[in-house]
Amino acid sequence: MTLAEEVGAEIAKRGAAVVCGGLTGVMEAVCRGARREGGLTIGIIPTDNKADANPYVQIPIVTGMGMGRNVMLVKTADVVIAVGGEFGTLSEIAHALKLGKTVIGLRSWKLERACSKPIPGLIEVDSPKKAVDLALSVISAKR
Amino acid sequence: MTLAEEVGAEIAKRGAAVVCGGLTGVMEAVCRGARREGGLTIGIIPTDNKADANPYVQIPIVTGMGMGRNVMLVKTADVVIAVGGEFGTLSEIAHALKLGKTVIGLRSWKLERACSKPIPGLIEVDSPKKAVDLALSVISAKR
Amino acid sequence: MTLAEEVGAEIAKRGAAVVCGGLTGVMEAVCRGARREGGLTIGIIPTDNKADANPYVQIPIVTGMGMGRNVMLVKTADVVIAVGGEFGTLSEIAHALKLGKTVIGLRSWKLERACSKPIPGLIEVDSPKKAVDLALSVISAKR
Amino acid sequence: MTLAEEVGAEIAKRGAAVVCGGLTGVMEAVCRGARREGGLTIGIIPTDNKADANPYVQIPIVTGMGMGRNVMLVKTADVVIAVGGEFGTLSEIAHALKLGKTVIGLRSWKLERACSKPIPGLIEVDSPKKAVDLALSVISAKR
Repeated sequence: MTLAEEVGAEIAKRGAAVVCGGLTGVMEAVCRGARREGGLTIGIIPTDNKADANPYVQIPIVTGMGMGRNVMLVKTADVVIAVGGEFGTLSEIAHALKLGKTVIGLRSWKLERACSKPIPGLIEVDSPKKAVDLALSVISAKR
Repeated sequence: MTLAEEVGAEIAKRGAAVVCGGLTGVMEAVCRGARREGGLTIGIIPTDNKADANPYVQIPIVTGMGMGRNVMLVKTADVVIAVGGEFGTLSEIAHALKLGKTVIGLRSWKLERACSKPIPGLIEVDSPKKAVDLALSVISAKR
Repeated sequence: MTLAEEVGAEIAKRGAAVVCGGLTGVMEAVCRGARREGGLTIGIIPTDNKADANPYVQIPIVTGMGMGRNVMLVKTADVVIAVGGEFGTLSEIAHALKLGKTVIGLRSWKLERACSKPIPGLIEVDSPKKAVDLALSVISAKR
Repeated sequence: MTLAEEVGAEIAKRGAAVVCGGLTGVMEAVCRGARREGGLTIGIIPTDNKADANPYVQIPIVTGMGMGRNVMLVKTADVVIAVGGEFGTLSEIAHALKLGKTVIGLRSWKLERACSKPIPGLIEVDSPKKAVDLALSVISAKR
């Protein structure tokens, strides 16, 4: 089982829902993991065609807005878990930090600015379980 | 019970999900009707704040894209039922017809173009039950 | 010269800029008319590819947001002139009325709602010159 | 003169246009620099209000799509120069790299992924002049 699949499974075990980009790769793995544990999966897809959602997405949201949908993903999520190092993930980390949302990284991007200002909203962890535990703690704390 | 609430209830009775703009007025009424019958409600909201969704929305999608979200509503829906005559509804009718989706009107807009070309995708009915029956028939026919 | 081309020419003669959807048909005609008179043309295009702009667009804005760009067109314009009766135009009329912007129609959509409430923001005229004169008067009045 | 202002001035001197987010800070500085040298400035703004554009923007594009407009900025630009280390800038770097566009950094983000795969599209330079020279070379090479 991949890291992303395990993240999905952990989210579902805690009764939380997965919202992701709805396509293949990490997005499919996290949905597959969540479905295996009976969780709810929402996929906000960039294209015009519902059929582009991976088979583990239960609720496809069809935006037709390309990468513009990355912004909506982040706005819809209560907390962001970034898995892996693709550029779409990087844009979501950036949008989340801009919005003041906590981002939990799992083998994801390491960021440093020329000015060396720290980035307190970005927290790297080393296991899916820790990522989801922390995510749920962040959500609880905000309530 | 308002017309919109009845539409929501009829959709839920048939096991279909409601996707709407997620705010107040017609959008709230349709969600309330659907929830009363145990249906699923998705609200694609224009603002940045999940709390703007009406209390009958189960799955809020937070777009922060203003009226740009009307396009996504229409793309996400399998068929469009337009209730009443607000401008947002008119934009959704237009986007749906542009995409070749069937629009079923209930006390909604009457459209005519200067060139008098007919608009076969727009069908006016006179009751929530007829609207939802027709909507489900359109979905079945496309499968 | 088509109606749309004449609208573009009249806009340019008065020193105003054209902002449109940037593709073919009415959008190309209005840009061609404006360029003939030395006017400025901005095309907000729905695709990801600048080359999809018609050759009379001087400033292409590449949105990749499909019909979502119709909303931006309307927000960017000071006043809206609707030419002809396509569905994209109808969505723009709707978005403009929702925003409280004046829409001037030239052989465009006739709208009526079931509730018969009037639509004062939508004004039909019968010539490009009258359309542009009225548009400029609306802009002046708002200043 | 700030770094951003110098970038704007260098762009204008070479006859290229500035397209940016249109607000204050780095965005305003780059527009001010470009205008000082008689260049063209386009501001794609996130809000609904044209008046939010900084005074050096000649052509405001009003999107009302919040951070969704960052995507359009990047799609509209032929090449991206990232100045400084804000989160909006980081999202634009990410979107540009995803699209395969070259990003030239000036005191901006340093990126590293957990997997250590290199990021060849991101090039750090140490002066506005070098940034703009390289940007123009990239554009020429693609023609």
